[in-house]
Amino acid sequence: MNKTVRDKKPIVHCITNYVTVNDVANAILAIGGSPIMADDLAEVSEIVDISNALVINTGTLNIRTIDSMLQAGYVANKRNIPVILDPVGAGVSELRNDTVFKLLKLINFTAIKGNISELSFCAGNDSFTRGVDSNPSDEKLSSIEIAKAVAEKFHCIAIITGEKDIVCDESHAVEVVNGSTMMKNITGTGCMLTGILGAYIGACEDDKFQAAVNASISMSVAGEISYDKYKDVGTGSLKVGIIDALSQMNDEIISNRGKITNVQC
Amino acid sequence: MNKTVRDKKPIVHCITNYVTVNDVANAILAIGGSPIMADDLAEVSEIVDISNALVINTGTLNIRTIDSMLQAGYVANKRNIPVILDPVGAGVSELRNDTVFKLLKLINFTAIKGNISELSFCAGNDSFTRGVDSNPSDEKLSSIEIAKAVAEKFHCIAIITGEKDIVCDESHAVEVVNGSTMMKNITGTGCMLTGILGAYIGACEDDKFQAAVNASISMSVAGEISYDKYKDVGTGSLKVGIIDALSQMNDEIISNRGKITNVQC
Amino acid sequence: MNKTVRDKKPIVHCITNYVTVNDVANAILAIGGSPIMADDLAEVSEIVDISNALVINTGTLNIRTIDSMLQAGYVANKRNIPVILDPVGAGVSELRNDTVFKLLKLINFTAIKGNISELSFCAGNDSFTRGVDSNPSDEKLSSIEIAKAVAEKFHCIAIITGEKDIVCDESHAVEVVNGSTMMKNITGTGCMLTGILGAYIGACEDDKFQAAVNASISMSVAGEISYDKYKDVGTGSLKVGIIDALSQMNDEIISNRGKITNVQC
Repeated sequence: MNKTVRDKKPIVHCITNYVTVNDVANAILAIGGSPIMADDLAEVSEIVDISNALVINTGTLNIRTIDSMLQAGYVANKRNIPVILDPVGAGVSELRNDTVFKLLKLINFTAIKGNISELSFCAGNDSFTRGVDSNPSDEKLSSIEIAKAVAEKFHCIAIITGEKDIVCDESHAVEVVNGSTMMKNITGTGCMLTGILGAYIGACEDDKFQAAVNASISMSVAGEISYDKYKDVGTGSLKVGIIDALSQMNDEIISNRGKITNVQC
Repeated sequence: MNKTVRDKKPIVHCITNYVTVNDVANAILAIGGSPIMADDLAEVSEIVDISNALVINTGTLNIRTIDSMLQAGYVANKRNIPVILDPVGAGVSELRNDTVFKLLKLINFTAIKGNISELSFCAGNDSFTRGVDSNPSDEKLSSIEIAKAVAEKFHCIAIITGEKDIVCDESHAVEVVNGSTMMKNITGTGCMLTGILGAYIGACEDDKFQAAVNASISMSVAGEISYDKYKDVGTGSLKVGIIDALSQMNDEIISNRGKITNVQC
Repeated sequence: MNKTVRDKKPIVHCITNYVTVNDVANAILAIGGSPIMADDLAEVSEIVDISNALVINTGTLNIRTIDSMLQAGYVANKRNIPVILDPVGAGVSELRNDTVFKLLKLINFTAIKGNISELSFCAGNDSFTRGVDSNPSDEKLSSIEIAKAVAEKFHCIAIITGEKDIVCDESHAVEVVNGSTMMKNITGTGCMLTGILGAYIGACEDDKFQAAVNASISMSVAGEISYDKYKDVGTGSLKVGIIDALSQMNDEIISNRGKITNVQC
């Protein structure tokens, strides 16, 4: 499936944060895609129109780009271009909460990816009038239950990252147990995964669930490979090594090193 | 003291420039802190409220974020959250001068860090009506006198970076003579230090002066370690090596390699 | 000529995109220049006034910075400070097209650098009322013809990057055949070249054409050196290696490794 990405070189339009944007662009290139970063309202419609996937990431959210996100998502939905949401910091501020609410209400997402807090926030919004803090169920649920709730509520693929990644949709659920805990000591691994999801899903529309699983394995295995090489060197090299490993990724590595288990849900 | 940072994992809210933001985030993570980059006026109050320190950096200053800086600083002061200023480019344009003026007037800073020009600018502002160019005293003063002037005027820790770093407050002054001149050949080492100051001061509020000294040693020693390794390789590797060394930093290295001398003032 | 850059340390004011800005700053430093990134309308006039070159890059273009570009270009022209344009994405959206139109109409550029599509767009604009899509000549022309058309139309140096770089002005044309195709697998090599053009042209105003040729060789040879070292490692290391090689660049390497041929046109 990585071969398909490299053959098709899908254009991934990213409206993302300025902290990790360079790593996201390089990760998309490394896995075989073609990134375009564009966030001005005056051009996002045209950019998404030539893209194979749209990635919306709410890190360093600002008033100027919220309308760009909504507009790009609207056009993508109209054109059946897959849209991936990374609701960075959902739950942390009213601005992020309100924006994620709006995005979830107005855009159909193909995939939503976040950590357990961010997806709990998405899952908990079973009423758009209830508000953020009034849902007591968030912490009672396991990762799998939360992922499942998001998948069912938004009819999408839900990915929860953590020591294990959960990838599920309304009918399947898989755990990916690759990766290294050292990855959390660098910024951007989550954002890179979202970019890679855009590349895989944009290239492999026939099997989006498997595309998402492969994206998760690609990122996690890249983390492992880099960790094996640089664990005693430090986190600067770890980041460089992750991009290196993504650029060397192929279906054989994914198949040989990927550790996935199906999960009941 | 680095152990305290790693144990407490202080949240450092940064309103910073888009040139070096990724390196700042990775430096904070590497030294044991937890960075949050957020600059929209609609959310900075809430973000600073959950943070252990606020870092304000005026590189790539723009109109949109000045009010965010003022608002975040106001909330931080009200909550007794330490605020660190890096007045990048103070003295270079009216926009930066006016903004630094306003910040210094309206916010109480725990620490102010810059090069000698930037801190001269801060020190020279003994009257907010006098203007920038009318103070002839700037160039007559030594680094230590300027740092002292800033510390006394703003009742804060003042750090001047250069071949030697000066760290002083109203009653102490220390020179840190670690570091490498090759560090000035990469962008962001100053901004990274400011982020690290946020992490140390946010974690060690009982002894902020010593926290600032440890931050300065951490950054300078990381520069030395990376220089020893990559001096014949180049500045791309030097930057990676600095993050590597920060991620391996500990109190033993700081104590063994830190070269500090007390200074009369 | 690289020695001149390192001796003069020209200040290069960049109004550029947030994807590759860090790499551009580090590339300018590595080659011997001094970058300043500033994009707010309230300060660009003062910043360009103290600079030796201005670089305008339309990647991640937004409404806020268009006026900054126009204003900075206006001041640079008035002060005879060289201005370099990188029309990233020209042809991709109305916003970029309109902005590049305006920039080309209102600012005199010393050099314009882009890929063949972007320079075709610039070359095709022989009437500012004709619109973008109505010029059927774009694809019929070779790189050299397009570069020549841009050079003649705007009385500037035109650089087209690709497997070979073309550097031409109204009376000369040169092909630089260094570089590695692996460079296109990382983001930012084009933007870095534009920054380096700013450093070379800003330092060597007496022979701007040769400065542009040396900038192109510096970047391409840096790509080759890094490729030789990291081709089996990956694209993360490739990027680090390019900055490394730029920081080690000197006139001997440029003269020994540069492969240029004069072209008839």
